[in-house]
Amino acid sequence: MSVQENKIYLPKSEIPAFWYNVLPDLPEPLGPYLTPDRRPVSPSDLAGIFPPALIAQEVSDQRLHPIPEPVLEALSVWRPTPLVRARRLEKALGVGSRIYYKDESVSPSGSHKSNTAMAQAYFNKQAGISRLTTETGAGQWGTAMAIAARQFGMTARVYMVKISLEQKPYRKVIMNMMGAEVLASPSRETEAGRRALAADPGALGTLGLAISEAVEEAVSRPDTNYVLGSVLNHVVLHQTVIGQEVQKQLALAGETPDYLIACHGGGSNFGGLVAPFVPDILSGACKARAVAVEPESCPTLTRGKFDYDAGDTAGFTPLMPMYSLGADFQPPAIHAGGLRYHGASPVVSALLKSKVISAAAVSNDDCFKYARMMAWSEYVIPAPESAHALAQTCLTALELERRGKPGCLVFTLSGHGLLDLSAYQGNQEKV
Amino acid sequence: MSVQENKIYLPKSEIPAFWYNVLPDLPEPLGPYLTPDRRPVSPSDLAGIFPPALIAQEVSDQRLHPIPEPVLEALSVWRPTPLVRARRLEKALGVGSRIYYKDESVSPSGSHKSNTAMAQAYFNKQAGISRLTTETGAGQWGTAMAIAARQFGMTARVYMVKISLEQKPYRKVIMNMMGAEVLASPSRETEAGRRALAADPGALGTLGLAISEAVEEAVSRPDTNYVLGSVLNHVVLHQTVIGQEVQKQLALAGETPDYLIACHGGGSNFGGLVAPFVPDILSGACKARAVAVEPESCPTLTRGKFDYDAGDTAGFTPLMPMYSLGADFQPPAIHAGGLRYHGASPVVSALLKSKVISAAAVSNDDCFKYARMMAWSEYVIPAPESAHALAQTCLTALELERRGKPGCLVFTLSGHGLLDLSAYQGNQEKV
Repeated sequence: MSVQENKIYLPKSEIPAFWYNVLPDLPEPLGPYLTPDRRPVSPSDLAGIFPPALIAQEVSDQRLHPIPEPVLEALSVWRPTPLVRARRLEKALGVGSRIYYKDESVSPSGSHKSNTAMAQAYFNKQAGISRLTTETGAGQWGTAMAIAARQFGMTARVYMVKISLEQKPYRKVIMNMMGAEVLASPSRETEAGRRALAADPGALGTLGLAISEAVEEAVSRPDTNYVLGSVLNHVVLHQTVIGQEVQKQLALAGETPDYLIACHGGGSNFGGLVAPFVPDILSGACKARAVAVEPESCPTLTRGKFDYDAGDTAGFTPLMPMYSLGADFQPPAIHAGGLRYHGASPVVSALLKSKVISAAAVSNDDCFKYARMMAWSEYVIPAPESAHALAQTCLTALELERRGKPGCLVFTLSGHGLLDLSAYQGNQEKV
Repeated sequence: MSVQENKIYLPKSEIPAFWYNVLPDLPEPLGPYLTPDRRPVSPSDLAGIFPPALIAQEVSDQRLHPIPEPVLEALSVWRPTPLVRARRLEKALGVGSRIYYKDESVSPSGSHKSNTAMAQAYFNKQAGISRLTTETGAGQWGTAMAIAARQFGMTARVYMVKISLEQKPYRKVIMNMMGAEVLASPSRETEAGRRALAADPGALGTLGLAISEAVEEAVSRPDTNYVLGSVLNHVVLHQTVIGQEVQKQLALAGETPDYLIACHGGGSNFGGLVAPFVPDILSGACKARAVAVEPESCPTLTRGKFDYDAGDTAGFTPLMPMYSLGADFQPPAIHAGGLRYHGASPVVSALLKSKVISAAAVSNDDCFKYARMMAWSEYVIPAPESAHALAQTCLTALELERRGKPGCLVFTLSGHGLLDLSAYQGNQEKV
């Protein structure tokens, strides 16, 4: 590697052949999901909306899950993703630490979401499903699902939070280009949507309500299943290609990480990076501190409560053991739509509760400050979500510098910000 | 190569060390630029707005120009760019032809414009210049210049056509993030702008007027020079890294091209791809047909007249020997802003006049049709400009198929369309 050769590529043959399931390696077993009346959820409870393979993955105690050939082929269009040494950012910060970012923004959807979208579309297609429904807030997940549905010959309907759709019309353009149907939520297509509109004809929608609409439609149609972009175990499972590739790439660079940093909304991006490191962290072979980063304004992990809570507003989803701000928590309208979620992945929650990982909250100002620095130093505009991981990485590198102990920091650039530029409007950096 | 290994990467050491100047290889020498009163332009006429090195390049008869080390270093952040075999697009089209695209969208600005922006910023900095002015329509050139100015420690002021600024506010966001100042043109900062506003306070601006404003400011300030994103010989020169890399990449793939296709606005993208092939085309060693593609609604090369004409509306620029629709031609408001130019690069014009290359015009409908196909097959959304090259490539591949003679087609993806999605609004593809 040189200054020029700052990107660590892996050959296609190094795309992980397996997903790594962290469930059997958790220090304490995960509690079962519960129905609203608090009995354990059985696989048949989920059969109306998820295919058998994904339900099996959700509760599996098997460490390695082979990635099916058609999924590998789809992933191979953009994977392995590069690990990039951010030398210009290091210089801009004035630190001796080595900063690497795993660039998940090179995917078809521009974010890590495509990793699980392809897998979920495949397993649904295998189960004879021809239509998928889902919700989207900022639009990254909807985009990833639209592309994945098309890849596997299915149609997709995306319920997009109405206010997001109005603020980000271009996400709809991409989803439409990929053949997906995009509806503003609340819609008139579902009971949940009609109820919301009856109560308030001008309702702007919430992610919780969009989930309820998408689930309701999947339950009511045998040809249709529902897909979720984060939180659940099988989603974290599919994202572990990220961390497995990072392990190989760091080895190629001759690096051992001191920090593994990712932003945390529902937890799949963070879990995808960190889960593959957990066995070595537990054994002490890996000394890296894994830090989940969230916005100060939606502090699920740093200020939430660990308990059973529902994943959506209407209570259609099971109760899950997780850190939560409460299913009715209304996060402020921050720009990082992907981090405006009241709950957390049960897997990430369990890791935090066992102190295998830690959590940090960063301010909006710091996110924008370091995103601008990344833009003019690395020529990369991070998604507002990813800017949280970036900001924590920069703040940590500066702190290490003050302590005279530079190290190796790795963060996930979970997505690019080219479709979220409104977030950066008015944030001008002077030369 | 395999289906998975569809991207042909070159190592950083294979970034071209020289720019290739096609001027001495033109079948007929290029006529001199003329002043408005029709005397040949002398270097001193240009000294007020361009640095000596660029003026020398503009009229050079030297074939190879070494790329200065700092420019090479800046280019190495994203170059060499991949040459991609578009197997999924071939399959979607149902053709036996091999289609490759040179992916210039991976640059910091998302387009090929960064190749010359870095070079122009460097030569200006070397000449002691600290400020750059330029115009931008769609915003790709302004973005590239904002980044390049920052790279070399200069400030940049971008006059952006007012209507474009209103339609594409996010381009301004990026330019601001990079530290550039963006003004709506007509502005009150220049005589040309004030005159336009006096005549029509609601004027929406034109590219020609924005050029006039940027040039006027550069002329009036000794610390400030003007930079142009296309048309001129030195701009085409800087873009020849594209074609030189393609030559190496095709050799690696064991291919000889039958078609070299690029969209044509001012000519630097087309010239950058094709110029390095010209000596071999002239000698007969290369049988490729080089096709410049323009919109039917702005048919400079296919329906324009070859003569001396001005580059801007106000007549500040020299008269150049080129195909032109007339300096006062008002192209309709098509989505491909980068192709709405009345003139053409003198170099490309000379190549067309000598029949070394040919030109084609494609319809807006075909552009959108094949752009959608590229989106769902290759997961790539082309810039509306690049969609013209794509459409011509697809139409040619289909024609070759009908004739039972599949071939090897190469086109330039000069930029991505993520910042131009409004162009695709309402263009939905059904699965």
